[in-house]
Amino acid sequence: MAIANNPDKESCRINAADKAHYREKLHDVVNKILDSCKGAECGVHVDFEPLPSKQAIIQIIGNLREILFPGYFSEEKIDPVNLKYTMGRSISLTYDMLADQICKSIRHDCFRYEQPCSHCEEKANETAFALMESLPAIRDVLAADIEASFEGDPAAKSYDEIVFSYPGVLAVAVYRIAHRLYELDIPLIPRIMAEYAHGATGIDIHPGAEIGKRFVIDHGTGVVIGETAVIGENVRIYQGVTLGALSLPKGAGERLRGRRRHPAIEDDVIIYAGATILGGDTVIGRGSVVGGNVWITESVPPHTRVMMEPPKLVYRT
Amino acid sequence: MAIANNPDKESCRINAADKAHYREKLHDVVNKILDSCKGAECGVHVDFEPLPSKQAIIQIIGNLREILFPGYFSEEKIDPVNLKYTMGRSISLTYDMLADQICKSIRHDCFRYEQPCSHCEEKANETAFALMESLPAIRDVLAADIEASFEGDPAAKSYDEIVFSYPGVLAVAVYRIAHRLYELDIPLIPRIMAEYAHGATGIDIHPGAEIGKRFVIDHGTGVVIGETAVIGENVRIYQGVTLGALSLPKGAGERLRGRRRHPAIEDDVIIYAGATILGGDTVIGRGSVVGGNVWITESVPPHTRVMMEPPKLVYRT
Amino acid sequence: MAIANNPDKESCRINAADKAHYREKLHDVVNKILDSCKGAECGVHVDFEPLPSKQAIIQIIGNLREILFPGYFSEEKIDPVNLKYTMGRSISLTYDMLADQICKSIRHDCFRYEQPCSHCEEKANETAFALMESLPAIRDVLAADIEASFEGDPAAKSYDEIVFSYPGVLAVAVYRIAHRLYELDIPLIPRIMAEYAHGATGIDIHPGAEIGKRFVIDHGTGVVIGETAVIGENVRIYQGVTLGALSLPKGAGERLRGRRRHPAIEDDVIIYAGATILGGDTVIGRGSVVGGNVWITESVPPHTRVMMEPPKLVYRT
Repeated sequence: MAIANNPDKESCRINAADKAHYREKLHDVVNKILDSCKGAECGVHVDFEPLPSKQAIIQIIGNLREILFPGYFSEEKIDPVNLKYTMGRSISLTYDMLADQICKSIRHDCFRYEQPCSHCEEKANETAFALMESLPAIRDVLAADIEASFEGDPAAKSYDEIVFSYPGVLAVAVYRIAHRLYELDIPLIPRIMAEYAHGATGIDIHPGAEIGKRFVIDHGTGVVIGETAVIGENVRIYQGVTLGALSLPKGAGERLRGRRRHPAIEDDVIIYAGATILGGDTVIGRGSVVGGNVWITESVPPHTRVMMEPPKLVYRT
Repeated sequence: MAIANNPDKESCRINAADKAHYREKLHDVVNKILDSCKGAECGVHVDFEPLPSKQAIIQIIGNLREILFPGYFSEEKIDPVNLKYTMGRSISLTYDMLADQICKSIRHDCFRYEQPCSHCEEKANETAFALMESLPAIRDVLAADIEASFEGDPAAKSYDEIVFSYPGVLAVAVYRIAHRLYELDIPLIPRIMAEYAHGATGIDIHPGAEIGKRFVIDHGTGVVIGETAVIGENVRIYQGVTLGALSLPKGAGERLRGRRRHPAIEDDVIIYAGATILGGDTVIGRGSVVGGNVWITESVPPHTRVMMEPPKLVYRT
Repeated sequence: MAIANNPDKESCRINAADKAHYREKLHDVVNKILDSCKGAECGVHVDFEPLPSKQAIIQIIGNLREILFPGYFSEEKIDPVNLKYTMGRSISLTYDMLADQICKSIRHDCFRYEQPCSHCEEKANETAFALMESLPAIRDVLAADIEASFEGDPAAKSYDEIVFSYPGVLAVAVYRIAHRLYELDIPLIPRIMAEYAHGATGIDIHPGAEIGKRFVIDHGTGVVIGETAVIGENVRIYQGVTLGALSLPKGAGERLRGRRRHPAIEDDVIIYAGATILGGDTVIGRGSVVGGNVWITESVPPHTRVMMEPPKLVYRT
């Protein structure tokens, strides 16, 4: 007998008639919500094919992590004997799950936007396989990312610690998978993957960005990398860094859809915490270092240090 | 047989007497913790009515999201036939859950702060119903928020993507629900809701803030909007923006409780990533644009651009 | 019968032969991944002792929270009668779980780095007990932290609200536990705990940092506190504050491992949102106030205010 539902004092209880009265009036609420749904331009998703399942996509990411980093994320001990079986089973299972979700997302888009729908199951299997086929290459790039992460971080005790617990590694791994699906022109799923990583790590990388190998994000909370950003090799960025778009005049959203709006970062650049770099024409030249909390909307030549003026000191009276 | 518990080498094992010795000494730890509880001014919550359940409140948020955005967050396909039944069932269920949690939070506060407790169940049903009755209006405002989100974001592929996966939309939807409960003077629950959204999205909006329609938060990680902030219509803010309070002299916490401490943002303002705007007398005038990473503690006239000086460039020797 | 798997149009279906063809080719993917694993320097964890379980460690944190803040995080009502039993059971259970996970992490490190492994179960029980024994002292410090949090925050309605829902309190509580395990020289687990708190709150405190009592983190998203940072008593920091390391020349990661790289913050300092303070020789003197969004790489004398120049205002033409 939960106390809150059975207050010990008589005066605390609601009488049955009052309760019934409120419940009765819920009909009005239901009807008003239903009415508001009828004419709605947005916020309603009735009578369409089901969206892909977030839960299934998160599970797919979990499986792919275990495939890409064997032995790190499974509860069982992986040894050379069971590795092949575990891997084979996991790859085959994940392929089926992925094909299923891709099929849902393609069909959803066809019906939603009244495009002709055909061969969606075939296209889903084809692209799911294309992703699986890319895994060895993604693995190589991630190994380079992790190596770069270890080399530059004196707080890292071991590779294991980095793979097992660094949020930057999770976010970049999810990005590399989501980016491949984005290249394959799959709707919705790349973005759902990106938002999963964003929620888990605070790192928001749009799946459309192009990012070279040996990429390191340290700490990472608040990092934003826009859809058309291009990042070279051996780049290191810290928490709170934004590679974003410049101010948009009204209605520009529609016009700029699909055009270059985010900066290019060349090889061997370091960008410190809280720096904001904006604009599709902005290029940070090779080997440059961008200091923390700066705000840049123009290009920077190679091998340049960009920093804020030292702050003013005020001595208290 | 887990390996770690049954090390294969004899030298790895703890002998039974040593283990028993440590376990025996746990009695002391228990007693010391219990002793430290007795005199504690805070950190102890013994012999009070149970607090509301976070898990139940998160479930209520999930239900309300499905009610406000029908078809987006349910696993079943929603069509015009089952919509009415699904919606009716969900609204009635959610109303009961909410009344239950509100009752817990009111009773908790009464007993905790030794106020007279009466009619708590009645008040809980009344306010739970008041929230349900506000849902159609909240739906309309959220539809306007989503429309504004789409218009200004060239990376958005569709309304569906925005509703289904943008963290800003989740945070603002939870804020609009929590704010209504805050207006209805419900303790604890609005803050628990806000912290749920904060944890999921990195966006921290105090339920007390007043925010107009067509409000957009893009990316959002690190955004903080204080209790007494007032935001007009058609405002867009980016990740890392703080609308906060100015430095507090010692003991000011108590004195300022309930007074205006956070800025006002008028209609049609854009605030870029990492900007910090502080103080209860600070007003950002209509149509202004606040550049990234600035730090503002004074008012800004309408139609003004506020920006940092361009950073110093240093060429490496 | 899920629609997506059984498209209603014949043209949507994949034929059985095509499906079989893709599945057949998965063998190649498996083999390529397995080949890439063989020579790998990193990203592979095959044939080693299992890593500690993240899930178990998160559960241990949950138990410790309930032990440190009795009555706040349990579904049951805690009263003076059942408190002792609940506490005793929880402490004994948590001790066993912790000893188990510590044993795993020690054994893992021994086998991974080819160190001799002996007495790992004994060491695990000894250090698990040492942590349990520290709980009363940790409790006292946390009570002081919460008191300071309440005093300085006019938006806080009660101690309960702070303990129950403030992310800063969660992050600091987890840090104080993880720091004790770090002092006890336990591998992996302190970092896993820290990353759990980081994921939940956006606050990233390295377990190696030294932090005095009455420490408050308000809002907190994006806060980073490095491994060798030292923070005095009665310090308050806001969201997006970084206490980090200075730029590292190539290869410095290895050389600097274990040396002082992060700043010292003396007693009674306030650091506002988005400030970045870097370097192992940087000391922020007692009683100073660091304004938002500043970037500091040199020491600041006691009782100093450090602020950015006011930003440039541009009036639109």
